Amino acid sequence: MRKHVLSVLVENQSGVLSRISGLFSRRGYNIHSLSVGETEDPTISRMTIVVEEDQQTLEQIKKQLNKLIDVIKIIELRSDTAVYRELALIKVRTDKDTRAEVIGVANIFRARIIDVDIDCVMIEATGDQSKLTALINMLEPYGLKEVIRTGITALERGDTELKSE
Amino acid sequence: MRKHVLSVLVENQSGVLSRISGLFSRRGYNIHSLSVGETEDPTISRMTIVVEEDQQTLEQIKKQLNKLIDVIKIIELRSDTAVYRELALIKVRTDKDTRAEVIGVANIFRARIIDVDIDCVMIEATGDQSKLTALINMLEPYGLKEVIRTGITALERGDTELKSE
Repeated sequence: MRKHVLSVLVENQSGVLSRISGLFSRRGYNIHSLSVGETEDPTISRMTIVVEEDQQTLEQIKKQLNKLIDVIKIIELRSDTAVYRELALIKVRTDKDTRAEVIGVANIFRARIIDVDIDCVMIEATGDQSKLTALINMLEPYGLKEVIRTGITALERGDTELKSE
Repeated sequence: MRKHVLSVLVENQSGVLSRISGLFSRRGYNIHSLSVGETEDPTISRMTIVVEEDQQTLEQIKKQLNKLIDVIKIIELRSDTAVYRELALIKVRTDKDTRAEVIGVANIFRARIIDVDIDCVMIEATGDQSKLTALINMLEPYGLKEVIRTGITALERGDTELKSE
């Protein structure tokens, strides 16, 4: 099954996240990740939902989502016409011998060092899922103390607009 | 009411997002943002929930969350001892006269240009909520075509670890 990325405009109302995630869990659809945040319009939020389902189930999901009154608009993003990004914060064990190496790895991935302590550094990285996974794999041998990821967020490339009107 | 940031380790199981967001919506707690993603352990996800409630309600929320079997551990993060970060993708209208100005604004905020079209650019920015809001306000006069934000994700500074053991 392929991963599909849905971008969903929803009313910024209490309970909307619960209604949408409830729909997925009741029907047993597989959410790989879900990210929700503000948009340019304070009354509207935008969700990026990554689902791992076949094409037929995906069409069902879109129909079910469209039935929810909170849902304003849904589009399916394609990897060749959209930008996918995720944010990760990674706390890595370091000592005086390995600190420079870890910072070197972060630099290769254009990641930023945002906190340093005697025996760890915190790295902020953005990229698509495969880039972040590659970075985390490179850092693993040093010892991962904590990793947190936001899930994929995405916009279409070029002169397009997903608006409520 | 003050904003409180909760970092919650949960089992990476289907339905966990629905159970947690359902708890908030049933009881009418105000979620300002919720972000969920993978950790260094594939069986565990980590949520960052920003709530706007008084101290008493916050204690209730923590108790209710602890009752859910999916919840492994909860900590409250404090702005003086934690790093808060959010990712935003911003598509801004530009023409040949304003493109350089928009790129200049992005540079001031250490944001990255990740796509360019004849009449727009796409900017990737990370920072705390106030930095991203300031950037978006600076870009608004040029015309915001699309904005998407991930919600706050956060880790404690220094040599701490939130682990399931």
